[in-house]
Amino acid sequence: MTSQDAARTSENGRELGWHKDHVTGSRPDLRVPVRRVHLTNGQDVTLYDTSGPYTDPSVTTDVRRGLTPLRENWIIGRGDTEEYAGRPVRPEDDGIKHTSPRGGLRNLDAVFPGRPRQPRRGRGGQAVTQLAYARRGEITEEMEYVALREGVSPETVREEIAAGRAVLPANVNHPEIEPMIIGKKFLVKVNANIGNSAVTSSIEEEVEKMTWATRWGADTVMDLSTGRNIHTTREWVLRNSPVPIGTVPLYQALEKVDGKAEELTWEIYKDTVVEQAEQGVDYMTVHAGVLLRYVPLTARRKTGIVSRGGSIMAAWCLAHHKESFLYENFEELCEILASYDVTYSLGDGLRPGSIADANDEAQFAELRTLGELNTIAKRHNVQTMIEGPGHVPMHKIKENIDLQQEICEEAPFYTLGPLTTDVAPGYDHITSGIGAAMIAWWGTAMLCYVTPKEHLGLPDRDDVKTGVITYKIAAHAADLAKGHPGAQAWDDALSDARFEFRWEDQFNLALDPDTARAFHDETLPAEPAKTAHFCSMCGPKFCSMKISQDIRRAHGDDLAVDPEAGMAQKSREFAEAGNRVYLPIAE
Amino acid sequence: MTSQDAARTSENGRELGWHKDHVTGSRPDLRVPVRRVHLTNGQDVTLYDTSGPYTDPSVTTDVRRGLTPLRENWIIGRGDTEEYAGRPVRPEDDGIKHTSPRGGLRNLDAVFPGRPRQPRRGRGGQAVTQLAYARRGEITEEMEYVALREGVSPETVREEIAAGRAVLPANVNHPEIEPMIIGKKFLVKVNANIGNSAVTSSIEEEVEKMTWATRWGADTVMDLSTGRNIHTTREWVLRNSPVPIGTVPLYQALEKVDGKAEELTWEIYKDTVVEQAEQGVDYMTVHAGVLLRYVPLTARRKTGIVSRGGSIMAAWCLAHHKESFLYENFEELCEILASYDVTYSLGDGLRPGSIADANDEAQFAELRTLGELNTIAKRHNVQTMIEGPGHVPMHKIKENIDLQQEICEEAPFYTLGPLTTDVAPGYDHITSGIGAAMIAWWGTAMLCYVTPKEHLGLPDRDDVKTGVITYKIAAHAADLAKGHPGAQAWDDALSDARFEFRWEDQFNLALDPDTARAFHDETLPAEPAKTAHFCSMCGPKFCSMKISQDIRRAHGDDLAVDPEAGMAQKSREFAEAGNRVYLPIAE
Repeated sequence: MTSQDAARTSENGRELGWHKDHVTGSRPDLRVPVRRVHLTNGQDVTLYDTSGPYTDPSVTTDVRRGLTPLRENWIIGRGDTEEYAGRPVRPEDDGIKHTSPRGGLRNLDAVFPGRPRQPRRGRGGQAVTQLAYARRGEITEEMEYVALREGVSPETVREEIAAGRAVLPANVNHPEIEPMIIGKKFLVKVNANIGNSAVTSSIEEEVEKMTWATRWGADTVMDLSTGRNIHTTREWVLRNSPVPIGTVPLYQALEKVDGKAEELTWEIYKDTVVEQAEQGVDYMTVHAGVLLRYVPLTARRKTGIVSRGGSIMAAWCLAHHKESFLYENFEELCEILASYDVTYSLGDGLRPGSIADANDEAQFAELRTLGELNTIAKRHNVQTMIEGPGHVPMHKIKENIDLQQEICEEAPFYTLGPLTTDVAPGYDHITSGIGAAMIAWWGTAMLCYVTPKEHLGLPDRDDVKTGVITYKIAAHAADLAKGHPGAQAWDDALSDARFEFRWEDQFNLALDPDTARAFHDETLPAEPAKTAHFCSMCGPKFCSMKISQDIRRAHGDDLAVDPEAGMAQKSREFAEAGNRVYLPIAE
Repeated sequence: MTSQDAARTSENGRELGWHKDHVTGSRPDLRVPVRRVHLTNGQDVTLYDTSGPYTDPSVTTDVRRGLTPLRENWIIGRGDTEEYAGRPVRPEDDGIKHTSPRGGLRNLDAVFPGRPRQPRRGRGGQAVTQLAYARRGEITEEMEYVALREGVSPETVREEIAAGRAVLPANVNHPEIEPMIIGKKFLVKVNANIGNSAVTSSIEEEVEKMTWATRWGADTVMDLSTGRNIHTTREWVLRNSPVPIGTVPLYQALEKVDGKAEELTWEIYKDTVVEQAEQGVDYMTVHAGVLLRYVPLTARRKTGIVSRGGSIMAAWCLAHHKESFLYENFEELCEILASYDVTYSLGDGLRPGSIADANDEAQFAELRTLGELNTIAKRHNVQTMIEGPGHVPMHKIKENIDLQQEICEEAPFYTLGPLTTDVAPGYDHITSGIGAAMIAWWGTAMLCYVTPKEHLGLPDRDDVKTGVITYKIAAHAADLAKGHPGAQAWDDALSDARFEFRWEDQFNLALDPDTARAFHDETLPAEPAKTAHFCSMCGPKFCSMKISQDIRRAHGDDLAVDPEAGMAQKSREFAEAGNRVYLPIAE
């Protein structure tokens, strides 16, 4: 089953009680996707939708051709970019060495067959970033798009981007995306990681994981591939992705030097960044805050350095006994990223990997450097977010977001969890979902998901879904707690359906309709049970909602919300009397 | 497979890297169970153990005979209780009506075959509660037991019980339990609900669920059965349970009046309480705070009354237009409970059932009444805890625990979740696990688990396990955040094992060793992978922990924690210079 089939199979428009729709903006090609859930009481509920054209029955998608480049006219229309020949793709981009006994050419099937496109960049190397436009007071099509998507004014979007409090990751070479925004004033976003590794996985599986993750609500996807065919896998993922794609270019650079950290050079790294920027990567994790002098701060740690990027850079710094080439060449890197509108995700290479190491000197020393780099990036008009931990017990979580917001001038925080305990391998989506909900409530803009396989193995399809759903729960719980306008309407609609025993509406409104329906049917599969005024939990006699409804029916007058009615009146008198309760008669 | 087999199968003593052990107190029959995990580095880690004799290879258990009544000599030794004939068991106790066409006798197989035991109660109706003893300055065997179990002094236990800040639920008719304590100064506890319903389930399944739940860490179990064979099911569960058992007597009372709430009477209710107290129920949920005048406060709610007990009492109050018989006879109820040492769990019948209804007037009006009832219960020396919500968004959670602690004089709070969003049926163990962790951090003493089937159906074996594990995560995360002494040692041991690639130790220390091992083996099943210095997530080249270890090995001198060593010295100089970082060279 291809990813496209997967999306279609459970979709089928109105039959399933919902359909993909669009809200059109100021121009006909500015169409924001929404999910309209059709309730049995005749009402509609409109939900945010990340699933891309795959759930749109009016669109024929083909993973071998890629998605329609819907931003292309907007980008060209701005007139500040130019096409150019681009860097030639080399066998080593896919991890195939000149000296490889298996030859220099990859499997032809693997090459992306879609139409070739010349890369594009800012004319004369100028910054073509949403930050640059926002600062000049320009509201781009992308900004209007996310304003419609979030239900706020385009000016709010522009202001938040201009102030650096939000990012809109949108590489000029990834015209296929449906723009989205990451910032604390907006809905909390969720990232899903995919990626093959030296041990398992194939290109097809990664593309499938991407569409699967976005189907369940992933707002962005990071391709963390580390094995062969990195370049080609990324091309397939980008051309088929409706959401921004992030990467860690250091992983591919390390492949190019055969995994020997000490052989990395700024030139190899820079070449890899250009390669990925030309393909259309929207944001890149850069571990430029791991400085030589911070490495000893990790010596007393329980779990040392647990970020892959962080440990690679630490190894490099120590091997050469020199300052990080990422740090030393940071301004040049800014210029490259600005000319494609690649967003920085400044990596926390020294994040804690255990409860014992949370909020330690190494972690916060690096955070201060990230604050410094954030300022430099902004000077170059590069959009920037800051990555955060990791493993942090609940009572130490708030310090992380507060310090990050202060040091990094409110740049969006993008955290991995944090995991609130180390003792539950196999359930780290939950240990981290707890921390994620809390840190998002307190201002984190995007949450990087953790799957049940964290620390143990590579996530499969089910793990990806479980990770995404868990993090959508954390994100939505945070939206509610932050009082995001409109967030509670979804809960209210589902609770109304629950109270009124509209089972089909409950399923269709659920974050995961398939699972909700399957769980219900496990104990009460018969079709009449879908309209029953009880469920299998308590049975008909004990259903509190049924009794509650019976009470309302039988005592309609007494319970009327009309303030003049008898019972309500008594209740008011009670409240007015200071809510003092009776003394027990038996006394 | 019986529950016993289930426990034994995955146990097998040292072969699995852990074994059941005991810590002996001041008398030889005071033996506190612990789980000793044997690490491959020769160290032992000692963990709290709730699994009962089922995981003790030196004990032969037989569910048809029940567990050894290990508290019997302690109870008899106190000399303040007496055996008596007890209330005769009647067919209607099992939901079999005189008029039932199916006849008056239940299935003979279902009757518990273990040795008959006369019920016991306080001589002359005196209070034989742990609260009464604690207030008199007596340290009981049960108090010493839980002190050993929690790693605190017996005097601390006595003080907390005497002050009403903790309860030690231990009916004199449930001598089989291994005593445990519920209070904010102690480890956060987890309750698992089991219970057949009119729709599904059998006696054997419920006993099996109980031992299964305690095997994974449930500290107490509530039997919420509502169908037939309620009395008999409870007898089997009690006689085989190593943990305190809670019930909601109202459910059985309602069965006795054929589900017609308006036909309930104080006499039928009282008779049911005595019936259950004689069997050995350790704590009972009593919805005595649902007052007639509060019912109209629920009229404007989105989801009305969602507590079964609450809706039954509301229906009764309205039908008779009289005050609740539970409220009016509360003092008499106290006297009954005191004479068996049944602990009150004062139910929150008006808890919110949706985000929209959280922290509303109905909820907090009832809480104030529960505060009043708490004071009355204490006057009768009845141990008391207070139940809490429900559905509450994150930003409204803290008000719940703060208000409860203030109004109820720090009586232990016992909450259901709370669920932090309504939109994820099928995943409510997670929506509620988030709220549970937070409210426990802030002082809640026991968490009532929620399974993935909440709102949809009855939990099966897998759901019970998932619910318990999720809530053990929430409880332990809270123990860490509260700084409970010794809590972090578990995380530290697991993180050490992780950093040192001791895979078997990671599995054995995990909250769920089976799942951790299975997930690892899914991608890297070969035995050598269990000692490999990487896992399938990143592969050997990208393993940050491996690189981190390599760094330590290669730069041992530089990274030495010896403060005189070169790199550490440089790092200190850096810190002393105010942690100012370099300016980028490129500037």
